[in-house]
Amino acid sequence: MRLSRYFLPVTKETPADAQIVSHKLMLRAGLVRQTAAGIYAWLPLGLRVLRKIEQVVREEQNKAGAVEMLMPTVQSADLWRQSGRYDAYGPEMLRFTDRHEREMLFGPTNEEMITAIFRDAVKSYRDLPRTLYHIQWKFRDEVRPRFGVMRGREFLMKDAYSFDLDEEGLKRSYEAMFVAYLRTFARLGLQAVPVRAPTGPIGGTLSHEFHILADTGESALFYDAAIEEVSREELLGADASTIARLTGLYAMEEEEHAKVAECPVSADRLRTRRGIEVGHIFAFGTKYSASMGMTVQTSDGGQVHPQMGSYGVGVSRLMGAIIEASHDDAGIIWPESVAPFRVGLINMRADDCNVTSAADEVYAKLSDAGVDALYDDRDERGGAKFATMDVIGLPWQLIVGPKGLEKGVVELKQRATGERQELSIESALARLSA
Amino acid sequence: MRLSRYFLPVTKETPADAQIVSHKLMLRAGLVRQTAAGIYAWLPLGLRVLRKIEQVVREEQNKAGAVEMLMPTVQSADLWRQSGRYDAYGPEMLRFTDRHEREMLFGPTNEEMITAIFRDAVKSYRDLPRTLYHIQWKFRDEVRPRFGVMRGREFLMKDAYSFDLDEEGLKRSYEAMFVAYLRTFARLGLQAVPVRAPTGPIGGTLSHEFHILADTGESALFYDAAIEEVSREELLGADASTIARLTGLYAMEEEEHAKVAECPVSADRLRTRRGIEVGHIFAFGTKYSASMGMTVQTSDGGQVHPQMGSYGVGVSRLMGAIIEASHDDAGIIWPESVAPFRVGLINMRADDCNVTSAADEVYAKLSDAGVDALYDDRDERGGAKFATMDVIGLPWQLIVGPKGLEKGVVELKQRATGERQELSIESALARLSA
Repeated sequence: MRLSRYFLPVTKETPADAQIVSHKLMLRAGLVRQTAAGIYAWLPLGLRVLRKIEQVVREEQNKAGAVEMLMPTVQSADLWRQSGRYDAYGPEMLRFTDRHEREMLFGPTNEEMITAIFRDAVKSYRDLPRTLYHIQWKFRDEVRPRFGVMRGREFLMKDAYSFDLDEEGLKRSYEAMFVAYLRTFARLGLQAVPVRAPTGPIGGTLSHEFHILADTGESALFYDAAIEEVSREELLGADASTIARLTGLYAMEEEEHAKVAECPVSADRLRTRRGIEVGHIFAFGTKYSASMGMTVQTSDGGQVHPQMGSYGVGVSRLMGAIIEASHDDAGIIWPESVAPFRVGLINMRADDCNVTSAADEVYAKLSDAGVDALYDDRDERGGAKFATMDVIGLPWQLIVGPKGLEKGVVELKQRATGERQELSIESALARLSA
Repeated sequence: MRLSRYFLPVTKETPADAQIVSHKLMLRAGLVRQTAAGIYAWLPLGLRVLRKIEQVVREEQNKAGAVEMLMPTVQSADLWRQSGRYDAYGPEMLRFTDRHEREMLFGPTNEEMITAIFRDAVKSYRDLPRTLYHIQWKFRDEVRPRFGVMRGREFLMKDAYSFDLDEEGLKRSYEAMFVAYLRTFARLGLQAVPVRAPTGPIGGTLSHEFHILADTGESALFYDAAIEEVSREELLGADASTIARLTGLYAMEEEEHAKVAECPVSADRLRTRRGIEVGHIFAFGTKYSASMGMTVQTSDGGQVHPQMGSYGVGVSRLMGAIIEASHDDAGIIWPESVAPFRVGLINMRADDCNVTSAADEVYAKLSDAGVDALYDDRDERGGAKFATMDVIGLPWQLIVGPKGLEKGVVELKQRATGERQELSIESALARLSA
């Protein structure tokens, strides 16, 4: 993509209400613009990252056997009356009436809707187990939206729902999602701490939250240092034994930790850090299948209420969490897995036709090799171009300038390390195409 | 995908309010389920088609130089007060207040929001021309939603917005979108008739609607038969000359046609058919840039209000239009470009381990070759499997049964023609991988 034809409004100033670094950097790097309190438009660069995060989440859901569908954003209040949650849900639910005075709402979650869909379609044990998911915009009317997309009102969530015949099946579905979550966060370059959670308003018997460690997190965590020692490789290849290892280690949110009479972790092994909640999984059994009258026939002709679980990932929030975990003073440092472009190609002298024709050729070769590159072909000062590339945080910068070209070289800079190398054009292309 | 692990609730009966064939078939084929009046959940098979349509639309937008972003669904009423449209827009706009009593709405379109974003980011002629688009869910509170996703309330729309320095530039941006639309509809296997349209509430000077010919269309069209003679190949390679050719031919909606004193087309060349509106493009000049105070500096230091256009495609409605245009008594016939899977693989005897192991092997080889296949591995009667495959309309059916295997063959059926052929497994795989 040529920057001269793109829409990338980077800025130097950020509004006073942008307190945390990810919020500031998302505005500065032209990823998002606020359009109302807690509501953001995703500018082209931000959308590319969002889609990449979404794709990692999707791939791991699919690997876990979950099937993707898409439920609408607007729901009928009647659905929520069936489960009894309509009156129980607080002012975070955005409620309205349509032109016929029917009560509707902007979905904050989808337990009721998926239960109704599954109930009306599935009658036999042969159609279970099944886990369905969707990645859709949700709305929660936070009283005080803040921290940019981390606690916005309109946000993108992946929510999955499992249906099993018995508790043993539910446990397997829950573990499959637990594994998918560990892999997902590891692929996104994040260290996630699974914390045993109280089940709260969704109800049920078993629940874990997944927190990303960051000083700006809203939760205070207390956990065994051994959790940090689980390697990224182990998490990428997570299985049931990884879950057993992790859930065998102490990890609590402050409120729950305070209730523990005697902490099983010695003081020198107890870590206290702040965390950002990016995932939450629940096994809640028959709460919705019973209240909403969903039954399936068993193999011996009986009828049971399926055992259900729900599994959420804050897709848009993850973008903030990744930036909190990976940035420096100059800007964002994207992990390769979610970088909006792999390479930022800088033409140092757009007014010099030799440099421009060399840079154009490099750009064409990168495109031919299938390497996503953002090409700064604008007639601007080199310093401004460097600052833009640093703030938007692409993994590699490839710099084409007149001095280098005289020597037959270009400069390759790795954003994360700051390391710079002079290479022939061919070597640089080979490195980036690898 | 193995059907035994998928979620494909096909049905025989459809509700009485499903009057048109696409609505009936979308329900029967398990593509969607209604969750409230005019609001649908996209089941896994339907979502796959929706994403493929979306991708064709996206690719043609990108080819036309438009840049993708994503605006939120919820908008502030204040934005619409800036343009003066808040009070003008009727009861189709879904309005509500948030918990702080701020007036909000579910966006039916995005002229105001994109104008505000562009206004706040762009100050110089050097950043123009630019066309931005997004593909996002919209809500229009139809008084009587009907025809399934064709006139639903929550629907997926691609809307693009162009910004130019002068009218000449706007004309170029308009033509680039006109070309993108012709190509998009041709790639989707649809014959689209561009109709000169009155500009209506969006305002402006130039507008065209794109209609798909179908007996169940809501519009009555009068047009020169020569429009039907433009070949698919010409539309796939459309350019400015194609536009000149098409817009030089008479085409009007009934209401406008009635106003024409003397129709320029002779009676034997005048076609009257019904059409489904799937696209609408507008050049409206400075309507929003002036009312919302957007100016950019020109190269000679002056200030101008950019010339704007907006360009919509009904992405979810297109699914209905494609089915209206491509089905038979047995079900849907998907064009290859949007088929949810390319091949339906049928195991005729899931209770026979020889047949099953042969079918499993074919499925594995299709997967290895990157051919999307839906594998009916369920223990059901062959007749039910054929009926399911016919109604869901995958382009090819590959049938593995005991009699064929004795002869060393499988059966390949083309859904569109009904043609069946016995082939060796290798030949069938080679045909499908082509």
